[in-house]
Amino acid sequence: MNGKIGINQRMNKSNGRRQVKISSLGGFAQVNRNMYCYEYGNDIVLVDCGIGFPTEEMLGVDLLIPDISYLKDKQQNIRGMVLTHGHEDHIGGLPYILPKLPNFPVYGARLTNALAKEKLKEYNINRKLIEIDGDSEIRLGEFTLRFARVSHSIPDTMHIMLETPVGTVYHGADYKFDFTPVDGIQPQLSAIAAEGDRGIKLLLSDCLGSERRGATPSEITLNKMFDRELADCKGKFVVTTMSSSISRLQQAIDASIRHGRKVVLSGRSLEKNVRVAMELGYLNIDKEHIVDLKRSQRMKDHHLTYLVEGSQGQEGSALYRIAVGDHHHISVKPGDKVLFSTDYIPGSELAIHQAIDNLYQRGVDVVYREVADGLHVSGHGGQEDMKLLINLTDPEYFYPIGGQYKHIEHYKKIVEKMGYAGDTVMIPGGRQVVMDEQGVRLGDMVSVRNVMVDGLGVGDVGNVVLRDRQMLAEDGIVVAIIQIDSETKQLVDEPDIISRGLVYTKSGDGLMPEAKKTLYKALDKQKSLKDWHLIKKIATNQLQRFFMKKLERQPMILPVVMEV
Amino acid sequence: MNGKIGINQRMNKSNGRRQVKISSLGGFAQVNRNMYCYEYGNDIVLVDCGIGFPTEEMLGVDLLIPDISYLKDKQQNIRGMVLTHGHEDHIGGLPYILPKLPNFPVYGARLTNALAKEKLKEYNINRKLIEIDGDSEIRLGEFTLRFARVSHSIPDTMHIMLETPVGTVYHGADYKFDFTPVDGIQPQLSAIAAEGDRGIKLLLSDCLGSERRGATPSEITLNKMFDRELADCKGKFVVTTMSSSISRLQQAIDASIRHGRKVVLSGRSLEKNVRVAMELGYLNIDKEHIVDLKRSQRMKDHHLTYLVEGSQGQEGSALYRIAVGDHHHISVKPGDKVLFSTDYIPGSELAIHQAIDNLYQRGVDVVYREVADGLHVSGHGGQEDMKLLINLTDPEYFYPIGGQYKHIEHYKKIVEKMGYAGDTVMIPGGRQVVMDEQGVRLGDMVSVRNVMVDGLGVGDVGNVVLRDRQMLAEDGIVVAIIQIDSETKQLVDEPDIISRGLVYTKSGDGLMPEAKKTLYKALDKQKSLKDWHLIKKIATNQLQRFFMKKLERQPMILPVVMEV
Repeated sequence: MNGKIGINQRMNKSNGRRQVKISSLGGFAQVNRNMYCYEYGNDIVLVDCGIGFPTEEMLGVDLLIPDISYLKDKQQNIRGMVLTHGHEDHIGGLPYILPKLPNFPVYGARLTNALAKEKLKEYNINRKLIEIDGDSEIRLGEFTLRFARVSHSIPDTMHIMLETPVGTVYHGADYKFDFTPVDGIQPQLSAIAAEGDRGIKLLLSDCLGSERRGATPSEITLNKMFDRELADCKGKFVVTTMSSSISRLQQAIDASIRHGRKVVLSGRSLEKNVRVAMELGYLNIDKEHIVDLKRSQRMKDHHLTYLVEGSQGQEGSALYRIAVGDHHHISVKPGDKVLFSTDYIPGSELAIHQAIDNLYQRGVDVVYREVADGLHVSGHGGQEDMKLLINLTDPEYFYPIGGQYKHIEHYKKIVEKMGYAGDTVMIPGGRQVVMDEQGVRLGDMVSVRNVMVDGLGVGDVGNVVLRDRQMLAEDGIVVAIIQIDSETKQLVDEPDIISRGLVYTKSGDGLMPEAKKTLYKALDKQKSLKDWHLIKKIATNQLQRFFMKKLERQPMILPVVMEV
Repeated sequence: MNGKIGINQRMNKSNGRRQVKISSLGGFAQVNRNMYCYEYGNDIVLVDCGIGFPTEEMLGVDLLIPDISYLKDKQQNIRGMVLTHGHEDHIGGLPYILPKLPNFPVYGARLTNALAKEKLKEYNINRKLIEIDGDSEIRLGEFTLRFARVSHSIPDTMHIMLETPVGTVYHGADYKFDFTPVDGIQPQLSAIAAEGDRGIKLLLSDCLGSERRGATPSEITLNKMFDRELADCKGKFVVTTMSSSISRLQQAIDASIRHGRKVVLSGRSLEKNVRVAMELGYLNIDKEHIVDLKRSQRMKDHHLTYLVEGSQGQEGSALYRIAVGDHHHISVKPGDKVLFSTDYIPGSELAIHQAIDNLYQRGVDVVYREVADGLHVSGHGGQEDMKLLINLTDPEYFYPIGGQYKHIEHYKKIVEKMGYAGDTVMIPGGRQVVMDEQGVRLGDMVSVRNVMVDGLGVGDVGNVVLRDRQMLAEDGIVVAIIQIDSETKQLVDEPDIISRGLVYTKSGDGLMPEAKKTLYKALDKQKSLKDWHLIKKIATNQLQRFFMKKLERQPMILPVVMEV
């Protein structure tokens, strides 16, 4: 590897600036937090600006956003930003990131822009978004951008072809190919093929579905499923799915109408998505078929379908509240049916199954992945979809994106099976991918931190704060208040000890006086208590040892020394 | 429901004590923490004594144990305890529970007792365990117990038939029926059938697999899988499975020997299980095929299979350490293969997939559920296994155990499909199940708390402690130290404010002085600061409001008032 870098550095020099540098500002081997920076000379084009989700250790953190520190000294070079589609992990970071960068044009397809505008409005940000479609061509500095509409779980999903003086890059964010789509709009394969004929040097391809054999089935296959599940439902019919799955909502609504049911919506972002999609004509529903929660309460159960948010069992979501019997307007009972038309996002399994179990406890019939087939199709292509894109683009190099290491490795296997050399697949780790006339290779490291959003704070929760929260979560805290006489430098009294989250106070009744005594003895041994640093060290050590021995617990020890 | 209870109460009186009362001391609709109490007159028989696992909200809690407070006033009635098999969720509670109860005989099959003995030894508890097998018959007070060997993922798993003066109960804990078992030992269907012929009034049946159609495939089907996966492995072959799956270990070892490999073990409880199973002859391996970690390091990779603990990706386990490159003796590299022959325990999915991804990052080939079929078979029966047990026992009443609500409801559907009335299925919630000559019905509530074990403490972590830990985990803590002049009852100085886990100190630089000032102003407004309760209330309110406004965070506020 070291040898290679040596060569790269020489090449860098000889080529001067005639190269495209691609940096992922959301990190590497990430499914979410998508943001890519394309750089050629003094021109920068950004693609997407999404949020990511905190891992288990990131206690109390709401979300993650891309790290734009790489752009610090070159903000003036940004010629524009393009949004591939309207999912949170591609547009959710806009309200946090846009205000920190200079003004530049932002491009997206119609629905994408409408959803991005809604998001910005929530944060009182007013920004003009420029509409593109599959026939658009835009020039941003030395970049010429063309587009191809692809299939995904939200309409108006675009792939981007970035033509540069040293070759063309195909930016294939989230996609699949659905030739019988619910909205009838076909993916634009000929546009991709034409670009492939002109020559594509580097293919960035969504690789999230690379573990799955075959092609992802068409959304249309779900029509029959909805009919089947509605046919034997005697009470309320409740459907939960990802709020942004517009075509899934269309199908659930159409099927409900076929079965003589009106539709009720519950969930903030679901309602927002439906409103926006109806306004723009992406959801094709007669308004009379939608009834509000209040009106629905005067209607018969078997005349109603409820579309509710919370397919991942998220605490506080509409579905969660229905499951625990805490929804103000929707209560379920025997005879009703709840359908989970969704993937399980890794890490949500426990919450989903808890929701399912709570629903069963109410006597409701639940239909979910483990007991019925074909309730959901993925928004991401399987192995055959990926092969199709590779065939059409026939690139010289590959850069799998939007997946973890396992997805990347499975993508690489597909590429190799199709006859390309394995070393044409870039696995950049945290490096840039550099393209010039000679070819594509890895460049410098780009440092990407976890920029965490917690409440109003952006980036003010770091590793120290997280470590503290983990420690506090595990065994609580012990505060020891040690008063020193300012003249004699001796203890005024026994120290005070307060604990939270350590032990049930009654059980700890005898414990705290003993802890006090232990600490008092240790401090009293000292001749003089002038050195606060030393006092704190003694207190921490003594109390750590004490609680370890007594409880095998390691609370955070917070000694407070005061001179009085 | 109410009407029914009325009738029940009348029946209770008329029948006096001629009834069996069954209480679940590990709670209801639980997969783990198995412990059942059978009571007839002055005789009590206990079945199993397992641990449960804390839910996500139980921060810092190690495990849960059954709540034996129901036994408080009747400990002297306990005639004995029977262990159905050697899994943690059936025997893991012994070291916590046995010392709290009087001495009584404990029964179990050979391997079960050996594993229970190991567990007790760790806690320095010496207790005689009495061996039973499929032909045993024991009398415990008015109970006569017979047994039937069934299949499960650990050998020596038993079902129990409890004959009483008012009818026979069949206690069918975890089971499946494997007619081509790895160890050749058949489940004792004829013993079950004979008991069924004599008449079984109530069937307690494991229902965990009730979502799955068909019968659970035989363990033997995995032989071919191991051969297939070994055939193309050029480097180390690493297998992870549940440490107690003795037959799986036998198969992995046999297949490895067939492919000219020696076997290395890594993981404390895996090594313990293998040692015990080999000593008792449950694992049939020539010792020369097992090599220790040190010797293995002088051997060629393709001559070695590693059996490692950590199939759920548990932090600190052997597999976890291999995946993050932190195992002292086992390092993996391209050419090696890691096989997950395991179920994903709900809630472990994220950890398992993180381990898989870390392994891919090391260039290793990983074989897991999402990319290959038939890597694992469940230890629990599917719908057809359950039907078979129902056919053989032909009970009057049913009581599905060992599953959540969803499993119970699916079990009920099976029962109804077989022609039994739905109301013969007891779903006790937290109630007792009561059997007398007339039939079976629900009885009184039995209160079962979550008894949590944290370090050395048993039951000293309650809801208050957990709530505190959750609050601390979310947004940390702010300690405010308020000094009051003991004579003037006025503030001595500005309060001191210390925070942990709230905000990165540098970002918070301006924040804490501002918080101090806010608090000082609010307290200084008071004429006199005599009332400590009031001072604390003001401090808490002020600081809560302050941090909500500034950060949208809600740290725990801990005001400390001192007179000086």
